[in-house]
Amino acid sequence: MNKVMKPVAGVRLAAVEAGIKKAGRKDLVVIELAGGSHCAGVFTTNRFCAAPVDVSRDHLAETNPQYLMINTGYANAGTGAEGERLCLASCELLATLASCKPEQVLPFSTGVIGEKFPLPAFEKGLPHALSALSIDGWSDAASGIMTTDTYAKMASRQVEVGEQSFTISGIAKGSGMIKPNMATMLGFIATDAAIAPDLLQRWVTSLAEVSFNCVTVDGDTSTNDSCMLIATGKAGNNCFASGEEAGAAELYAALEQVFIELAQMLARDGEGATKFVTIEVEAAASQSDARTVAETIAHSPLVKTALFASDPNWGRILAAVGRAPIDVLDVNQVSIWLNDVQIVSAGAVAPEYREAAGAAAMANKDITIRVGLGAGGFTQTLWTCDFSYDYVKINAEYRT
Amino acid sequence: MNKVMKPVAGVRLAAVEAGIKKAGRKDLVVIELAGGSHCAGVFTTNRFCAAPVDVSRDHLAETNPQYLMINTGYANAGTGAEGERLCLASCELLATLASCKPEQVLPFSTGVIGEKFPLPAFEKGLPHALSALSIDGWSDAASGIMTTDTYAKMASRQVEVGEQSFTISGIAKGSGMIKPNMATMLGFIATDAAIAPDLLQRWVTSLAEVSFNCVTVDGDTSTNDSCMLIATGKAGNNCFASGEEAGAAELYAALEQVFIELAQMLARDGEGATKFVTIEVEAAASQSDARTVAETIAHSPLVKTALFASDPNWGRILAAVGRAPIDVLDVNQVSIWLNDVQIVSAGAVAPEYREAAGAAAMANKDITIRVGLGAGGFTQTLWTCDFSYDYVKINAEYRT
Repeated sequence: MNKVMKPVAGVRLAAVEAGIKKAGRKDLVVIELAGGSHCAGVFTTNRFCAAPVDVSRDHLAETNPQYLMINTGYANAGTGAEGERLCLASCELLATLASCKPEQVLPFSTGVIGEKFPLPAFEKGLPHALSALSIDGWSDAASGIMTTDTYAKMASRQVEVGEQSFTISGIAKGSGMIKPNMATMLGFIATDAAIAPDLLQRWVTSLAEVSFNCVTVDGDTSTNDSCMLIATGKAGNNCFASGEEAGAAELYAALEQVFIELAQMLARDGEGATKFVTIEVEAAASQSDARTVAETIAHSPLVKTALFASDPNWGRILAAVGRAPIDVLDVNQVSIWLNDVQIVSAGAVAPEYREAAGAAAMANKDITIRVGLGAGGFTQTLWTCDFSYDYVKINAEYRT
Repeated sequence: MNKVMKPVAGVRLAAVEAGIKKAGRKDLVVIELAGGSHCAGVFTTNRFCAAPVDVSRDHLAETNPQYLMINTGYANAGTGAEGERLCLASCELLATLASCKPEQVLPFSTGVIGEKFPLPAFEKGLPHALSALSIDGWSDAASGIMTTDTYAKMASRQVEVGEQSFTISGIAKGSGMIKPNMATMLGFIATDAAIAPDLLQRWVTSLAEVSFNCVTVDGDTSTNDSCMLIATGKAGNNCFASGEEAGAAELYAALEQVFIELAQMLARDGEGATKFVTIEVEAAASQSDARTVAETIAHSPLVKTALFASDPNWGRILAAVGRAPIDVLDVNQVSIWLNDVQIVSAGAVAPEYREAAGAAAMANKDITIRVGLGAGGFTQTLWTCDFSYDYVKINAEYRT
């Protein structure tokens, strides 16, 4: 992926080898925000959230952050009070070097759960990271936050609103232990627009909801998921505060494009993924029904292995719909399509369906499974991937 | 498995090659019940239940069954009205040959969903099956109902109560699309005891609850799951009606042993399974919390691939507990053991835990994951297996 990442005024980034992971891998990323920047975030719903999630949440509530510090290879989850103490110590290290308060540092970790915090690696790596900070560091940072990702995930947009121009750049990482709330393990998106903290929080919540929270790889919610939206204010616009101002809708739409682009990359690069699968459930009686049916299909190992095999074994989709825990389901109203091929109508195989057409649809790399419930007006889209030998291989060998 | 299956007076069985599946495989099983037998069952909760499930339920409500007819290779699910018509036609075929009413035939199918019913194979196979019926046919029948099972699943017990002796024999099949409600695709258990229909129904429901409904392989509930308990009455006991009679508790306990033995075989022979995994959740605030946490662990692809790799990556178990959708969880109260090795205490890695001990526990073929929630007095045990390359292989190549 050779993407042009536009610098965002007020944001400098660096990625260095601190020796937290294997040798030869950049594993420590620092993002510096200019004074006056605001930052808002959404975090994992997993009760066993990692120490850095707790610390970032606390620091964010106290003051405006000046640094985001992200390490890979080490999650700092399941580490109890000692994990939190060492996490705070790492913030102090950076604060001393950068002459700011420890509360102005937001820490993020991703990697193996439960191992001991490698503070010496931070001591070694942080000075290098600070001296390497650059407005052109986006691509390096995107690589530096990767774990089992096979490519760096980044997206960038410029949006013109009247005389005003805003830039948005973002990076994210996957690619296992991925399920809505939050779907991404880590995402950092910045704009040079000035956005008031309250609106920034509302926006990041709703943006995550239609992007990262619509991705599922394996149904496992990580302990470390965090998604941060940064507004540096360097574009010099009148600060967006209500979201009703001229230009706010355009900016929001551009942010949404970046969020969704990054989210779809997570599904496309799910561990071992060979297919990018869009699941659309429509005509549901409620939003929650639509989402439940979509998730049941997206998490079915049998559906996912059939997708891997390019086998139009649609009975597995039907069985997943049938076992989805929703209150009311009239099986005689259910329709299913694979891309444009209708395979089920009125709850049974469609009379005009031919296996060859299903096989042709399944042969695509991008597949849409569309399910109509015939019960109401609610829809839900999820993005996921198939389940391959390599998912098992990657996760069986993750720590070796 | 060379098990001695005790004949049950009043039950004769046969398995034949009818050509429903690949050549050289027995794929049609007939079980004949003597007059006066009672039969009760529990069926899949999947809304897309197969035609034979609907038909069996109807027939069971109408009269005492005389024949159970089971085919593999073909599920007759997702087949609409035509599927039901052909299923009834197959019952009529057998009824004509055996001079009984079609309602006295209970049909069961397992195999690929959505394909067309192979009625000619039944026409060909049923006469052979009827002439091959034998009280020693249990082992043949256990083999005849297999699909991706790697071995036939059967269990047998004799129980003495005072002067009275009861025999119990049962067969079951797995081994994918397996999750509680009903866990087994098919199970048939018979005793020569006389048991009144109401009690038989109560017993089969509670027996399934503590056996087959405690097994999960991949979280997918089949469209065809059925479990039948047969009481022929040939032992000549005074009919058990309330379940409070002398000897009833002993008989129930023996039945429970047979049900649990068959259920555990399903987990042990889950598709691609290399480990048999018992998940025990204890000290939960409610039964539903205990079950939810156990299921979340049992269905986590990340936990299951770590089990396959014999990797004590307990962070994945912790993360699964943390995302389980229960109302209250105090993470500081959580303990986790792998067999006898405590790995988590008070929500973080146990101070005395050493990776070598975890690795040694994980190296076993039988592994118990025990989780204490420190919230109350409810417990739940589930049986499952790991997630291997072969699960993907078996399910990617299922129809080829």
